[in-house]
Amino acid sequence: MCLGLFATMLFYEVIHMDMKQLYSKAASKLKRSEIGELKSRAAGKPDILSLAEGVPAAELFPTEEIAKAAYKIISEDGARILQYGDCRGDKGLRTHIAHIMEKYAIHVQPDQVQITSGSMQSLDLCARLFLEEGDTVLVEDPTFIDAMNILAFAGGTIEGVPLDEEGMDLAVLEEKLRTNPRIELIYIIPDYQNPTGLTWSQARRKAFMELVAQYDVVVLEDNPYGELTYGEAYQQAVKSYDTKNQVIFMGSLSKTFSPGIRIGWLAGEQSVIDALELVKEHCDLHSSIPDHSIAATYMNIYSYDDHVKYMCGVYKKRRDVFVEALRTYLPDFTFTVPKGGFFLWLRMPAGVDCMKFFDACLEEQVTCVPGTPFYTNKDNHEFMRLNFTGLNEEDLVRAVQRMAKAYAQLV
Amino acid sequence: MCLGLFATMLFYEVIHMDMKQLYSKAASKLKRSEIGELKSRAAGKPDILSLAEGVPAAELFPTEEIAKAAYKIISEDGARILQYGDCRGDKGLRTHIAHIMEKYAIHVQPDQVQITSGSMQSLDLCARLFLEEGDTVLVEDPTFIDAMNILAFAGGTIEGVPLDEEGMDLAVLEEKLRTNPRIELIYIIPDYQNPTGLTWSQARRKAFMELVAQYDVVVLEDNPYGELTYGEAYQQAVKSYDTKNQVIFMGSLSKTFSPGIRIGWLAGEQSVIDALELVKEHCDLHSSIPDHSIAATYMNIYSYDDHVKYMCGVYKKRRDVFVEALRTYLPDFTFTVPKGGFFLWLRMPAGVDCMKFFDACLEEQVTCVPGTPFYTNKDNHEFMRLNFTGLNEEDLVRAVQRMAKAYAQLV
Repeated sequence: MCLGLFATMLFYEVIHMDMKQLYSKAASKLKRSEIGELKSRAAGKPDILSLAEGVPAAELFPTEEIAKAAYKIISEDGARILQYGDCRGDKGLRTHIAHIMEKYAIHVQPDQVQITSGSMQSLDLCARLFLEEGDTVLVEDPTFIDAMNILAFAGGTIEGVPLDEEGMDLAVLEEKLRTNPRIELIYIIPDYQNPTGLTWSQARRKAFMELVAQYDVVVLEDNPYGELTYGEAYQQAVKSYDTKNQVIFMGSLSKTFSPGIRIGWLAGEQSVIDALELVKEHCDLHSSIPDHSIAATYMNIYSYDDHVKYMCGVYKKRRDVFVEALRTYLPDFTFTVPKGGFFLWLRMPAGVDCMKFFDACLEEQVTCVPGTPFYTNKDNHEFMRLNFTGLNEEDLVRAVQRMAKAYAQLV
Repeated sequence: MCLGLFATMLFYEVIHMDMKQLYSKAASKLKRSEIGELKSRAAGKPDILSLAEGVPAAELFPTEEIAKAAYKIISEDGARILQYGDCRGDKGLRTHIAHIMEKYAIHVQPDQVQITSGSMQSLDLCARLFLEEGDTVLVEDPTFIDAMNILAFAGGTIEGVPLDEEGMDLAVLEEKLRTNPRIELIYIIPDYQNPTGLTWSQARRKAFMELVAQYDVVVLEDNPYGELTYGEAYQQAVKSYDTKNQVIFMGSLSKTFSPGIRIGWLAGEQSVIDALELVKEHCDLHSSIPDHSIAATYMNIYSYDDHVKYMCGVYKKRRDVFVEALRTYLPDFTFTVPKGGFFLWLRMPAGVDCMKFFDACLEEQVTCVPGTPFYTNKDNHEFMRLNFTGLNEEDLVRAVQRMAKAYAQLV
């Protein structure tokens, strides 16, 4: 058949190709975040109070200062920053970032920092450098859902290691390391973890590194919340106990400065950072240089540390009010007071299922996130993740009062 | 051995782990761009004139206007745009982008546009959705080097299909499609291609689509240069002949607005764009919302079309001066006059090897890019890629005069 006739036939028949049949096997592992689905159930309820968020309080963004920094650097240095740039990221910003990591007793040069488009990309770059189909990734159980999804998409088989009040259970970890030669990565969030709000003790950090130093395995230490510390001092990073250069540290400006602007980073041994830069070059060439320059210019003109201190002051008060309200209105529920970060991990009273409580809360116009999807095997129904930084103090109390109403109807 | 003692030993021995042994098989395919290596040979030569760039002329960026747009949108709407945002990208910008594609006779809704962090990410997202190890990707031969590197990193086996003055050789293409069931993607740059500057004829575009419509294969039409048209009208896209929704169109603001700001896009059938959004969510959650909003605000306040028209005027003059200089000073060399874009593909006189000419040019303080690495099998030595948009008219003439000196020493 001549091509012209064939085309004419197509024009009348309009046979659409089913692209799905052409998707890769990996694409079948793509998962919408379960949190998004749960939150969508609150959509359309106008009066709802949300404890479900994992985002910074937008009213605390230093909006005017960032706008001024943006105008200044683009008008003064636009020809440079609007052009193609350095894949590693703006050097001025990397210098500020090296300074931030000093808070956790991590000492690196700016060239040991690879800037990424946020922690999700940091994870993806590491996954693509280290993982192939069938490699095992150990995670805290429970852990951050999106991290599990990204690591699984890149080919990792996810296995959980239980988390207690002091950190990862080292007996279980050792057993796994001893018996599974395909363990490639261990992903941990030692400071104010998402979802539990828990913080590893310094003793556990040290013992963890002593154990993993005996194995050829890479540790990804994710620390997006570390600067949001409500106590006396910052936590000393797991990376600070790293004698063999096997820890890659992941940081972020998303919780303290702006998540929209997408700035995360990776820090570690020089050759690994060089390799990760090459992976990034294959993913998106480089991140937005104006964004890096805006952040760096903001930090040059204003005090980023003072801004973080101010944020911590507001969040600490919110945490205190929230803790007080929970103790007052929900005395049957237990929890560990988080020392920083965004989240409080509420344990249900015996016999109360978190999904049922979630439904009841939704009826009372308050939404939160059930703990179940954060577990590797999705079979724990005892916890609820509550965010205490997104609402003002008054609304936090009202939210807890609504939860108490919901609970009263369940028992 | 107790862990404490083990740690002490480590402290004194400092055995660094060799991370390289832990890299994935895919990581072995990571390649530094050959262009970067060639260009690095010009480093340290203070007086050099570069025809090797593939970047827009920074002096044409609308710097002050972008700075004003940035200040306006961040100060007025910072709480929204600095917060987490829509993975598909800012809706206002997607509306402008849908308008840009009308120039190529592509008609899509803003929701059929997925914004990416530049064309490299657009390619990577498609590769991750469609490719698995061992799938074949057909490309024009020669083609854009970085695209080959990205597609190979994602598992693709790259095969070239020769390019003539009118576009891809359809007889070779048909033979390949007929005999290789693992062909998954065809990657093409029909407008003012990198590296050749060639443009597919409309007849070839139509015939190409009539042929590929008979196969279950996805076409990636990459068009970063299309708006930089120096003739009467824009080219009608290959996508405009797509009766089966098998073409995914890739656009970019990197050549017309700013590459530093990293804005590219994918446009196509709704379900594929939905799937690509989910891939992007697993790569970096979303791109910088401030960047999207700055670009959209610029386009709301100023005329982006007028800016592009102005750029085209400057570049067209540069092309004309360059073509004239080549005809005057290098009459032994032949070429097709590019109708748009950044590049001119200079054919060496018989017996002159492009690598030798490159070396001779470097001696005379002018740098360009040999054509060899743009070929799939790296065995063609007849061409040189010359950029004519990065230097002003006077320097373009001086550069050609230097090339003529270099040539005189070779023959």
